[in-house]
Amino acid sequence: MSPCMMGLARIGRTRRTVPASPLLQSRRLAASDRDHGDLLDLCRRRNFLLGEEMTPPSVLGGGHSLGPLGAQLKRNFVQEWWDAMVLHREQVLPIESLCHLPVTSNPSPRAAMMTLPKSCLGQNQDPTREELGKMADLRQDLLYGALHNYLSCLDLLNRKLPFGIAEVGRCFHPITDKDICRVGEKTAASLAWFSSAKTCTQWRDYWLRQRLLWWRKFAQVPSRFTSDDQHDEEGRKKAVIQYEFPWGKETIEHLSSMDDSALTQIHHGPVANLHGRDGRKSIIPHVVWVSGDVERGLLAYLSDALQVTENPTSRGRDQRRMVLKIHPSLAPIKVAVDLGKGPAADLRLVCQGLCTELRGRGISVWPGYLETLQTPMEQLFTKYDETGVLFTALVSDTTLQSGLLQLRSRDTTIKETMHISKLSDFLTHYMTAALKL
Amino acid sequence: MSPCMMGLARIGRTRRTVPASPLLQSRRLAASDRDHGDLLDLCRRRNFLLGEEMTPPSVLGGGHSLGPLGAQLKRNFVQEWWDAMVLHREQVLPIESLCHLPVTSNPSPRAAMMTLPKSCLGQNQDPTREELGKMADLRQDLLYGALHNYLSCLDLLNRKLPFGIAEVGRCFHPITDKDICRVGEKTAASLAWFSSAKTCTQWRDYWLRQRLLWWRKFAQVPSRFTSDDQHDEEGRKKAVIQYEFPWGKETIEHLSSMDDSALTQIHHGPVANLHGRDGRKSIIPHVVWVSGDVERGLLAYLSDALQVTENPTSRGRDQRRMVLKIHPSLAPIKVAVDLGKGPAADLRLVCQGLCTELRGRGISVWPGYLETLQTPMEQLFTKYDETGVLFTALVSDTTLQSGLLQLRSRDTTIKETMHISKLSDFLTHYMTAALKL
Repeated sequence: MSPCMMGLARIGRTRRTVPASPLLQSRRLAASDRDHGDLLDLCRRRNFLLGEEMTPPSVLGGGHSLGPLGAQLKRNFVQEWWDAMVLHREQVLPIESLCHLPVTSNPSPRAAMMTLPKSCLGQNQDPTREELGKMADLRQDLLYGALHNYLSCLDLLNRKLPFGIAEVGRCFHPITDKDICRVGEKTAASLAWFSSAKTCTQWRDYWLRQRLLWWRKFAQVPSRFTSDDQHDEEGRKKAVIQYEFPWGKETIEHLSSMDDSALTQIHHGPVANLHGRDGRKSIIPHVVWVSGDVERGLLAYLSDALQVTENPTSRGRDQRRMVLKIHPSLAPIKVAVDLGKGPAADLRLVCQGLCTELRGRGISVWPGYLETLQTPMEQLFTKYDETGVLFTALVSDTTLQSGLLQLRSRDTTIKETMHISKLSDFLTHYMTAALKL
Repeated sequence: MSPCMMGLARIGRTRRTVPASPLLQSRRLAASDRDHGDLLDLCRRRNFLLGEEMTPPSVLGGGHSLGPLGAQLKRNFVQEWWDAMVLHREQVLPIESLCHLPVTSNPSPRAAMMTLPKSCLGQNQDPTREELGKMADLRQDLLYGALHNYLSCLDLLNRKLPFGIAEVGRCFHPITDKDICRVGEKTAASLAWFSSAKTCTQWRDYWLRQRLLWWRKFAQVPSRFTSDDQHDEEGRKKAVIQYEFPWGKETIEHLSSMDDSALTQIHHGPVANLHGRDGRKSIIPHVVWVSGDVERGLLAYLSDALQVTENPTSRGRDQRRMVLKIHPSLAPIKVAVDLGKGPAADLRLVCQGLCTELRGRGISVWPGYLETLQTPMEQLFTKYDETGVLFTALVSDTTLQSGLLQLRSRDTTIKETMHISKLSDFLTHYMTAALKL
């Protein structure tokens, strides 16, 4: 097995080791105080998130834009979600609804649920009309869109049940920060699943299992993703998927079941319109609703992937090595192409050709070779490790002579020699293998 | 050449035929009155767009949610945009900014540009505070996000110019409809390109050419996508890319150039922070800003793809054939898998296996075989043609015996016999070839 593929095998092993070894755990626990700061510091320094004053509440509350690496990470995350929830499903239809809910004179029960929470009104009993106005008709989740557009989707499927409506989109929520009420934002990834009352509980269990498996699939330590039962403000049971952050557990996804009133409350026409075919019966379906918070999910995966190891040869300076061992499918950049020793102009041409080839295969590349300021190689590796770049390809005068380049792995730190013509095949194979582990 | 590949060659030919033949033109012009209604009717009937009362202004103003086919079409559109503007570019960084602009006590020049238009204030000189409040801090475009996050991206690239910041995201604008002011929504696909003053004009021309080529790449009649120069409200020149809809030309993308004040007005710190390296010089860059309206773009491609032909054997009834000849890369569904004659239970198993294989290759499939209500084959083909499904695979008892299925092409309507094991390779090859034409 090549050293690079060994790195991949190691990912597989870590993922299967559900309870971490006691030694590993004690090292992790000792580091957990620092992890909190490390995580947010890394997010800021390496441009996963943008903005100053990053705190767990500000990040979880959706107060930050995504920087270049965060945006690419999110794109990969949503792609995986989409593949698992839409592309590979028989009966899931995607939609894209508007952020603004329709203005109605009679507020529906759903709309009533969207009033500002008490915390926002507590400090200031007479909030300005603007504050209320701003939030009033912005969606807080994607459920309304799915229920509202149920009829079109039902028609498209010739009224056949069960089926699902999937959507990924920006949602809004009020947050109170230093007595000021602001609008927080998040991206929700939502599935509303319509099925008969009889099968609704089975489907709920099915989706909960599927979603937990999905979250764990990309994790370094899958056991930190857990499911639990909670009750919402109105006493209804809902299942949640949580991730154990350094500062405690946070909900990243929730599942709830609703009876047929979910649809009858939204649609005011004849009830018969809502009927779907379940085998030979004609029924109004119940709903299982699964909704994940994408940005919290990203933070969970970043926290899961971040490994800090102490360097025993530390000479006073902070010699800790931080590596973001993020799953190959999610990694924002798969490979960095850099210059080794040799005639820069010639090597740049080789690098350019290599990058074009890799991009043609859909592999995202960091063109490190374009940099004209010299950076020591170790500093470069630190930067790439902290951003989760899987491999660094070093093109040097050897490459000009024999076509061989050096390929350094993030996970093993081992440098392997590889022919330049094999790199794109190797990476494609590596990515496919990582998904199957 | 197989009949199916002939269909592909025909796409290529149509695309190269920039001015349509006089005969074709006269047929098109005669049909243009009806086209308008046909287009919106198709969008509604086939679930590209959702909602009632579809008019050109309501669709162009972003008043409709996207249905299952529209959502998938948009996904493919954004994927192509992303590949062309981010993945295949050396120096373009993606970001994802918040929909709400930061609240500042001193409104910046940019914020001043975001006040409500006069048309919205005209009818009602004292608009309610809510109406103003709702719009006040929602972004109207993605420029602010790019300028605001310029510094983080500059750092990531070691201050090297030129570079670009790309983003695709929801934007908001006020619309007046029957004297009521509402918030319209659109998805913008934006690139802010930072370069030296000297090269700014060249870059503007470069991006305009690139963007026009991009739009034409996926068009049936590329000459309906044109570029033009316009002046904005403040007299500044901007370039626009327009599409010739049945009801007239509409702008789908615009390009404008800004000097270094674009950055200095947003950032209030020391000016030196804004400096980037352009060769050996240190400068504050000028900006070329490219911004496309995704939903308008989708409507342009739908309009471009819709072909209506009269059936000469019409017997009183409306015998027009509508085909949505949308580009293979954009088509929401690539292949439908349906049952022919034979034992349904056995055939369904074959179909299921085939669909799983196709999905594994990333090909979106419509599982027509799941339908238990019998539909005449011709009616099925009409439905698939109107939704732009490239191929219909018919699995029948012949498939059980010899592995052969019938593959019907949308573009040629010819049915070809193909071995079931060759289908996914054929489709992958077809998609790749379509992109290269």
